Amino acid sequence: MILRMSTLFVRTLRDDPADAEVPSHKLLVRAGYIRRSAPGIYTWLPLGLRVLRKVEQIIRDEMDAIGAQELLFPALLPRAPYDASGRWTEYGDGIFRLKDRKGDDYLLGPTHEEMFTLVVKDLYSSYKDLPLSIYQIQTKYRDEARPRAGVLRGREFVMKDSYSFDVDDAGLQASYEKHRDAYIRIFDKLGFEYVIVKAQAGAMGGSKSEEFLARLAVGEDTYVRCSRCDYAANVEAVDTPAPAPASYDGLPAAHAEQTPDTPTIDTLVAHLDEAYPRSDGRAWTAADTLKNVVFSVRHPDGRTEAVAVGLPGDREVDTKRLEAELGEGVVFEPLTEAEFAARPTLTKGYIGPGALGEDKPAGVRYLLDPRVVEGTRWVTGADVHGSHVLDLVAGRDFTGDGTIDVGEVRDGDPCPVCGASDGGVLESARGIEMGHIFQLGRKFADALDLKVLDENGKLVTVTMGSYGIGPSRAVAAIAEGTLDEQGLCWPRHVAPADVHLVATGKDEAVFAAAERIATELHAQGVEVLYDDRPKVSPGVKFKDAEIIGVPTIVVVGRNLAEGTVEVRDRRTGEREEVAAEHVVDHVVRVVRA
Amino acid sequence: MILRMSTLFVRTLRDDPADAEVPSHKLLVRAGYIRRSAPGIYTWLPLGLRVLRKVEQIIRDEMDAIGAQELLFPALLPRAPYDASGRWTEYGDGIFRLKDRKGDDYLLGPTHEEMFTLVVKDLYSSYKDLPLSIYQIQTKYRDEARPRAGVLRGREFVMKDSYSFDVDDAGLQASYEKHRDAYIRIFDKLGFEYVIVKAQAGAMGGSKSEEFLARLAVGEDTYVRCSRCDYAANVEAVDTPAPAPASYDGLPAAHAEQTPDTPTIDTLVAHLDEAYPRSDGRAWTAADTLKNVVFSVRHPDGRTEAVAVGLPGDREVDTKRLEAELGEGVVFEPLTEAEFAARPTLTKGYIGPGALGEDKPAGVRYLLDPRVVEGTRWVTGADVHGSHVLDLVAGRDFTGDGTIDVGEVRDGDPCPVCGASDGGVLESARGIEMGHIFQLGRKFADALDLKVLDENGKLVTVTMGSYGIGPSRAVAAIAEGTLDEQGLCWPRHVAPADVHLVATGKDEAVFAAAERIATELHAQGVEVLYDDRPKVSPGVKFKDAEIIGVPTIVVVGRNLAEGTVEVRDRRTGEREEVAAEHVVDHVVRVVRA
Repeated sequence: MILRMSTLFVRTLRDDPADAEVPSHKLLVRAGYIRRSAPGIYTWLPLGLRVLRKVEQIIRDEMDAIGAQELLFPALLPRAPYDASGRWTEYGDGIFRLKDRKGDDYLLGPTHEEMFTLVVKDLYSSYKDLPLSIYQIQTKYRDEARPRAGVLRGREFVMKDSYSFDVDDAGLQASYEKHRDAYIRIFDKLGFEYVIVKAQAGAMGGSKSEEFLARLAVGEDTYVRCSRCDYAANVEAVDTPAPAPASYDGLPAAHAEQTPDTPTIDTLVAHLDEAYPRSDGRAWTAADTLKNVVFSVRHPDGRTEAVAVGLPGDREVDTKRLEAELGEGVVFEPLTEAEFAARPTLTKGYIGPGALGEDKPAGVRYLLDPRVVEGTRWVTGADVHGSHVLDLVAGRDFTGDGTIDVGEVRDGDPCPVCGASDGGVLESARGIEMGHIFQLGRKFADALDLKVLDENGKLVTVTMGSYGIGPSRAVAAIAEGTLDEQGLCWPRHVAPADVHLVATGKDEAVFAAAERIATELHAQGVEVLYDDRPKVSPGVKFKDAEIIGVPTIVVVGRNLAEGTVEVRDRRTGEREEVAAEHVVDHVVRVVRA
Repeated sequence: MILRMSTLFVRTLRDDPADAEVPSHKLLVRAGYIRRSAPGIYTWLPLGLRVLRKVEQIIRDEMDAIGAQELLFPALLPRAPYDASGRWTEYGDGIFRLKDRKGDDYLLGPTHEEMFTLVVKDLYSSYKDLPLSIYQIQTKYRDEARPRAGVLRGREFVMKDSYSFDVDDAGLQASYEKHRDAYIRIFDKLGFEYVIVKAQAGAMGGSKSEEFLARLAVGEDTYVRCSRCDYAANVEAVDTPAPAPASYDGLPAAHAEQTPDTPTIDTLVAHLDEAYPRSDGRAWTAADTLKNVVFSVRHPDGRTEAVAVGLPGDREVDTKRLEAELGEGVVFEPLTEAEFAARPTLTKGYIGPGALGEDKPAGVRYLLDPRVVEGTRWVTGADVHGSHVLDLVAGRDFTGDGTIDVGEVRDGDPCPVCGASDGGVLESARGIEMGHIFQLGRKFADALDLKVLDENGKLVTVTMGSYGIGPSRAVAAIAEGTLDEQGLCWPRHVAPADVHLVATGKDEAVFAAAERIATELHAQGVEVLYDDRPKVSPGVKFKDAEIIGVPTIVVVGRNLAEGTVEVRDRRTGEREEVAAEHVVDHVVRVVRA
């Protein structure tokens, strides 16, 4: 089918939509690919749908190639399986819930681990049935607090989610590697820059997890990579290397000192330098102090608690890392004045380990940064207004209730892999999560009792992997990663057409020649978007071709009299005059290159 | 890709699912095409998804062929457009409603007239932009009171809905005819018996409307067709022909008579024959009496009223026809005792026109059957216990507040088209609505203010058509219309594969030959489902092939030693021994026939 601009359901717009900040969002709307129906909810116009379907097909082909089988679950899901897994509650406000006419609870599926687990339980019963990988390309829903950037972060979106089922860990590892390889082929074919990073498993549970991030400045995810080795990780997933525990033999005893008016780390460090200069002459730094930040935490089941994070004073708590550590659906905020008042043993600005811990009167769970290992020496609050303790030694003078790794990650921090050996340091960049692969393990199989008989006739719990790519988000990310000053600029494999053919002027011979070229290209399997509008100026047609962003533009115009047409490369802007009688062959070669 | 039974995610079941009554539902579950996720909500397993996708593609091809353009709307829709059209309320309990985290109202789209109207309003502004036909193939939701028969009547289902936009009625008529022709090609290709019937437009508003019904005994829709002409209509849409009004000159005056203990039509007729024999000797019949049935009616906006239907005593009110006449979302029930008590002028069992009408003390709206035309003479209630009026003449002695055509339609009723001229009579049959085409007219364009400039620069309201087919329902209907004693039995164009290849026995040469045949068929573009399971008995394999229902079955087994394989036709059961070296060519011919 030749797409014709004269009838195509598209209008290019001169002005940016009012709610758009991100360039790809502006251009996808202005070029007539998508329209907003509600916040975070979009309609795909014909051009947009063509790109979306191509992305989906690239994904589908690679899934089929690794033997994954496609099926299709509903989006409207019953509550019970999500109760069994705990996610009905864990998702908090993040999912859409509703009741049917009988009053039964349903949700709009945010992801389908539970349902896939159940269908395998329903059909399979033996190790002989495994391994199995099944997937769907389907519409999903999340009630995002801040839907953003058009289809980049929507509330209704398309997702390819696949799941692997294996009888043992080695099987899971193999299924995971197969998917990982398929994802690499998919992302290579989609045609934009990406990076694979270690990720936090979050609410999914499970152990190993990696993300495929599009490297984009507009991205919401910060990741870091090592300056030396190939380590890369989502900031939420960076494991801070813990120093080796040291002996505290011979260290001086802890001593409380007057530190009036030092409620902040800066004021404290200045005061220490003045009042308690170190014997070796080194200046005090924020990194010598131990900061204790107390949060009020509400769990999805309604349970609340106070949690203190103890970390070096030169670091802030990274709330995204804290969110990831606490798990999905957990809400937290700094302890309020009222909550402080209810815990008189906590002295605001001077809180120290002496008042923290589950066994202390304030009942605050006390979690320590990985850097706070046995033998490290700290200046920290003395739990008395205007007073700090010096030479407080971890392991000797205090211990926490556990460890938590939620301090901010900074450029220059040592690489967790090669920092100690080779001195590699981390550097940060921004990206957008495009794909996510997980080794779920047995979390869902346990919750929903998915067992098979093993070789010895014994029931064993199945181990699972989960693998997602968002095709609708991919469309936005590809657009964002490839656009230029003139407009969208699609990579070949996902473009809405292969060629944008423009007939200019009013000469009937031009339109006749263009029509013939369109027909011949179409006959050769080339997808043609033909601007056949009789009364539109060349300038408008060229502007439309540029903003729409089909990779090859063919212009049939006044040069036809000399027997040539122009072939333009949308990305490079290169133009070439090609003999009209050879243009079809020429374009076929360009398209298939 | 060759589908292999050894790895295909499918299990055939021996037992019918507990909740299944309809044969296609049982078989689609037993043969591993679908699984229930919740009432009326199904998962498509790989075989089922293949059939669904083929049905969708047949529809898509024909839509594209008439120049309709595909786009994709969200399923999660904002309330406002549905408020503007009135359907937020009209749908009553029939749609799923929900709130997002901000408390804003959303619905899961049952059909998308409003959204399509808005997107056209958004992009187009001139008569030059029209005609336009746009469509989507998309997941829809209705909270059916009685989800039924698997995917035949589900609560989440796939629908192709298209909409035409024209500047005038002639344009709408042309767009409607184009869609009608496309639908005929689609239904012919899907390969099952159907009939096109005149339909009631219902909540859609608008004028002309036809349904494509699958002719199936399990159908929920009753339709009638004429014994002589090509008239066919959904029972809800049958227009009862009204007799010509007659003069009432010379008819006797109405007279009330004692009719003790005659609260029913039967007792009344018996009493009339005994007490008031007619002068011409004809016996009284129920058709001589006028029955008045009073309903309590609640409208979607909460307004309630009492409505009486006056119709010949030999007919019942058809509640489905009444429902269709009153419109979607209107709820009604026979007047309760309490409501009777509140209206003392109504005498139960003896209600007559004297007490009915909006202007009477009881305030009951009185609607008359089309047969009750001016000059017709009736026996009806005298509004006094134990008394009826005879010779009550319509137009002379009483009139209604309007007409309503909700009497039951019976086999043998005169055809509305040729009954009077040629004596054609109606006969009824059962079917399932598979497609529905509507001339919506300007209902939605008016509600949402969709106007374009006409040739004279004047704003005119656009006129619309709406055209739906349910691919998921079609899968069930095709299954239902084609299955046999052995199992499913798919028409060629929608079957999950072209050939079901079975290797039997344990001979390695057999499996090697079958593998070769599978590979060669696949290379020729034939879709092969290959039963390569090494340890499964031929009997089980044959049973699986029969229940799965691929149209051509090829058996490679012991006859291979003599150089032949068997080719079976699943429908007819015909078997043919074909030389092994020619079987690929033979099958290709069969598949492409």
